[in-house]
Amino acid sequence: MSLKRTLLATAIAGLGLLPLSSVANEKVDLIITDAMVLTMNQDKTVYENGTVIVDGNKIVAVGDSSLAKQYSSDTVLDVDGDIVMPGLINTHTHVSMTVFRSLADDVPDRLHRYIFPLEAKLVSRDMVRIGANLGNVEMVKGGVTTYADMYYFEDEVAKTVDKIGMRAVLGETVIKFPVADAANAEEGIQYALNFIEQYKDHSRITPAFAPHAPYTNTTETLQKIAKLSLEKDVPVMIHLAESHREQEKIAERSDGLSPVKYMDSIGALNKNLVGAHMILVDDEDIELVKKSQMGVAHNMSANIKSAKGVSPALKMYDQDVRIGLGTDGPMSGNTLSTIDEFNQVAKVHKLVNQDRAAMPPIKVIDMATMGAAKALHMEDKVGSLEVGKLADIIVIDTKAPNMVPVYNPYSALVYSANSANVRHTIVDGKILMKDRNMLTVDEDAIRKEALEFTKVVRSTVIESGEVVQ
Amino acid sequence: MSLKRTLLATAIAGLGLLPLSSVANEKVDLIITDAMVLTMNQDKTVYENGTVIVDGNKIVAVGDSSLAKQYSSDTVLDVDGDIVMPGLINTHTHVSMTVFRSLADDVPDRLHRYIFPLEAKLVSRDMVRIGANLGNVEMVKGGVTTYADMYYFEDEVAKTVDKIGMRAVLGETVIKFPVADAANAEEGIQYALNFIEQYKDHSRITPAFAPHAPYTNTTETLQKIAKLSLEKDVPVMIHLAESHREQEKIAERSDGLSPVKYMDSIGALNKNLVGAHMILVDDEDIELVKKSQMGVAHNMSANIKSAKGVSPALKMYDQDVRIGLGTDGPMSGNTLSTIDEFNQVAKVHKLVNQDRAAMPPIKVIDMATMGAAKALHMEDKVGSLEVGKLADIIVIDTKAPNMVPVYNPYSALVYSANSANVRHTIVDGKILMKDRNMLTVDEDAIRKEALEFTKVVRSTVIESGEVVQ
Ligand SMILES: [Zn+2]
Ligand SMILES: [Zn+2]
Repeated sequence: MSLKRTLLATAIAGLGLLPLSSVANEKVDLIITDAMVLTMNQDKTVYENGTVIVDGNKIVAVGDSSLAKQYSSDTVLDVDGDIVMPGLINTHTHVSMTVFRSLADDVPDRLHRYIFPLEAKLVSRDMVRIGANLGNVEMVKGGVTTYADMYYFEDEVAKTVDKIGMRAVLGETVIKFPVADAANAEEGIQYALNFIEQYKDHSRITPAFAPHAPYTNTTETLQKIAKLSLEKDVPVMIHLAESHREQEKIAERSDGLSPVKYMDSIGALNKNLVGAHMILVDDEDIELVKKSQMGVAHNMSANIKSAKGVSPALKMYDQDVRIGLGTDGPMSGNTLSTIDEFNQVAKVHKLVNQDRAAMPPIKVIDMATMGAAKALHMEDKVGSLEVGKLADIIVIDTKAPNMVPVYNPYSALVYSANSANVRHTIVDGKILMKDRNMLTVDEDAIRKEALEFTKVVRSTVIESGEVVQ
Repeated sequence: MSLKRTLLATAIAGLGLLPLSSVANEKVDLIITDAMVLTMNQDKTVYENGTVIVDGNKIVAVGDSSLAKQYSSDTVLDVDGDIVMPGLINTHTHVSMTVFRSLADDVPDRLHRYIFPLEAKLVSRDMVRIGANLGNVEMVKGGVTTYADMYYFEDEVAKTVDKIGMRAVLGETVIKFPVADAANAEEGIQYALNFIEQYKDHSRITPAFAPHAPYTNTTETLQKIAKLSLEKDVPVMIHLAESHREQEKIAERSDGLSPVKYMDSIGALNKNLVGAHMILVDDEDIELVKKSQMGVAHNMSANIKSAKGVSPALKMYDQDVRIGLGTDGPMSGNTLSTIDEFNQVAKVHKLVNQDRAAMPPIKVIDMATMGAAKALHMEDKVGSLEVGKLADIIVIDTKAPNMVPVYNPYSALVYSANSANVRHTIVDGKILMKDRNMLTVDEDAIRKEALEFTKVVRSTVIESGEVVQ
C-alpha cells in the first residue's frame, strides 16, 4: 500500500464517510502490536500500548492500539508489551576488525606500535569480508540497523551489507602510507571514486570517503577529498580531535591551530564531514562544528578504554550539534552494538560533570537514534518511528530479568539493557532477526569462517613476536 | 567420592601401581570437559583444553583434557571450548529493590529525598521476598553464585536464597530511624540477632549485621555491633566513605576524622567488616583498611551513576586490600551481575589514571572472583577453581558474536561479555541454570509476581505525587 493510499484511507475513516470495518482489511506487509512504542520523534511521543504499521520498506502508521484494527497483514508481531523503537545507528566503526578482537588491548601507543603493523600483514579482501560478516551479525543481534564504517576494501564490506540487508555508510580509507588496497593517498582516492561509482545508486548503501585522520594525510589530500565529496555529494568520515599526538602534529603544520580549526582553515569542514571522537575540542571548535553542519560520532567506550579522555559530547548535544553514538572498531570498543555504550555514556558524563542529573537516559537514546541519523545526514530517512520513514525498527525484550520492571523505558534501556535483550531487528521493512535467530545469513557458517581466520592471525602474531595479551 | 579417595586414586595412578583404566571408572557427580578453564588460583593457571571434576558440593580435580578419562559421571557437560571460571561474587547489593528499578534514576540527593520515603511506604515481607526472587534469577542468569546483601526482613531473603540454591551473606539492616522491620537501631540489632541465631548453621547462608552507614547510626550502636559481631563471628556490612554528606556528618561527630579513621577510632574497623563504596579514602585510610583486614566492595557503576566519584580501588587492589566487585542495589547499579561492571571498572580506572594499561582485565576478573571472596572472608571456600573448594562454577558462551574470537579470555570477558553470555551456572555442585534455563525456580511465575507488585508501586508513587521519571 502506498503512503498516499494510507493517508486517503485514514482521511476517509476520519470523515466518517465509510464505516471503520471497510478499512479494516487494508492489507500491509507488517503489523507490530501490543508494543511500548518509543517514536523518538520531535515530541518524543510514547505509545504505552502502541502499534506500528509497515508497508514495503516504509512506516505507514504509528499510533495506539486502535490502529491495529484498521490494517491486516500476513505478518503480525504481537510483542506482548516489549519496547519497540527505531533501529540503532552506529556512527563509527571498523567492522572488519572483529577478527582481531581481544588482541593486545592495553598496549600503549597501540595504533602506531601494534595495529598499523598488524594490518600491514593481515588486511586482505578475505579478511575484510570475514570480519564484516561477523560484525554485521553482532550488530543485527544488538539492534544496530545502520552503521558507518571506515576501512579498506569497502566494496567487500558493501557486499556483506547488501547480503544481510542492513543499511550502511561505507567509507573507503585514504591514508598517506602504503596500505593493503592502495600504495598511497592518491590510489586510495581512486579506489574510493571507483567504489562510489559502483554503489552510488544502492538503496541501502551510501559509499563515502574516509581519510583516516588529518595528521595521517596531507593538506592537499584533505582538500581534494573535500572538493570531490561536494561534487559527488557523498560523506567524508574522519578521525578528528582524537589524540594529543594528532593535536601536536596538526599544530606544527598549521601554526598552532586545533584540528577542528585546521580543517576549517583548509576548507574541509562542511556538512558532508563526519568527525569521529572529537575529544579535544573547545568552545570555539564547537561553534565551528555547529556552523559547518558536520556530524559527530561520540565513542565513549573506546575513548575511555584508551584513556584518551571524554569528549564534551553533552555540551555539543545541548548546543544542537549533529551528534550520535558510535562504538569504534572491535579492537577499540570492543563490541559493536551501541546498547553497550548507553550505560557508559550516561554515567561517565555524570561523573565528569559531577552531576547525577547530567546526561539523562532520554538524551542517550536520542543520540543513539535521531542524533546519529542527523550525524550521518540521514534524519529524513531513519532515526525515528514516523510515517514516511524507512522501516528500521527493533524490539527489546522486557521480560529478561535485568529488564524487569519498566517504570521508565529510557532508564531501563540505558541503565539495564544489554545487546542480548534485542528480540527482533527489522531493516527496510524486512525482518533480519526474529527471536534472536538470523534470517538472512548463516550465523554458524560466519562464525566458523571467522574462527578459521583466527588461526592465520595467531600464527602471524606469534611468528612476529608481537604482544598477544 | 570423597576428597581423600580422589587423592588416593590419583596417588595410586601416579605410582603406576594400577593401570590407568582401573581408575577410569571413578564415579563423580559432574564432569566439565572441553573447557577453557580460568582457575583464578594464585598462579592464574589457565587450561586451554581443560577439565573440572565435581563430586558432591566440591571440586575434586582441575586439569587438562587427560583428566576427563580418569572419571565417569552421569552428568558430563562438554562445553565445546567455552570459558569455565569461578562463579562471580557480588560483594554488595540490596537485591529486593529490583521492584523499584528504573524509578527516578536521576533525582538529586536521591537516597534521602526519594528512596527512604519510598521504602517507608512500600517495604514489607512480601516486597522483600518478591524482589529477592527476581534479583536472584537475574544473578544466577548473570553468573553470580554468591552475593552479599544489606536490607530489611533478611530472613525472607534467606528463604529465597535457600530455595534457588545460591550462596549469600545476608546483612540485616540497623539504622537509627524507624523502618519497616524495626522502630529503632536497638530493634534492628535484635532482629539481626534472631536472624543470626536462625541461620548460623546454614551451609550456604551467612547471616550478618548491616548497619546502614556510620552517619545513620550512633557511635554506641556501631560499637555494640562491632562487639556482637566478634562474639558471634559474623560479618558486619556497612556503606562507608561513600558521600560528602557522610564525610561532613562524621567529621562533626569526631573532631574532623574521615569515616574510616572514625570507625577505627571507635574500635569498629576489624576483619569482620565489609565496607561498600570506599570512595573518599586517602592513603592513611587505606593503611588502616589494610591493617584491619576488613573487606571492600567496589561498586563502580553505581558510584559514577550517582556522580559520587571513583574509589581508589586499583590502588587498594595493588596494595593487597581485600577488595571485590559489587553492583550495589538495582536502583543504583542498576543490574545485578558483576559482568555488567567489568567494562566500566576497567575503563574508568584507565580514564582517571590517564593510562590505558591501568586496571588490565586480569585484575578485574580477580576482583570479581578471588578478590570478592577475600572481601567476604570466604577465600578458603570459593573464588577459584581449586581442589577442595566448593563447586561454584560458571560457563561463558564463546560462540555469541560479541565473544568471537577469544585471543585473550580475560580481555574477552571484560571488554566484550555481557550477562547474557553466561550459559550455565553451578552452585555447591548443583546446576542452577543450564543453557539459560532456570532449574530450581519458576522464572515466569517470579516475573509475574514482580510485575503484579509494580502496580502497587505505581499507584503509591503516583498518589504521593513523587517523581517517577
Ligand atoms: Zn575509529
Ligand atoms: Zn548500597
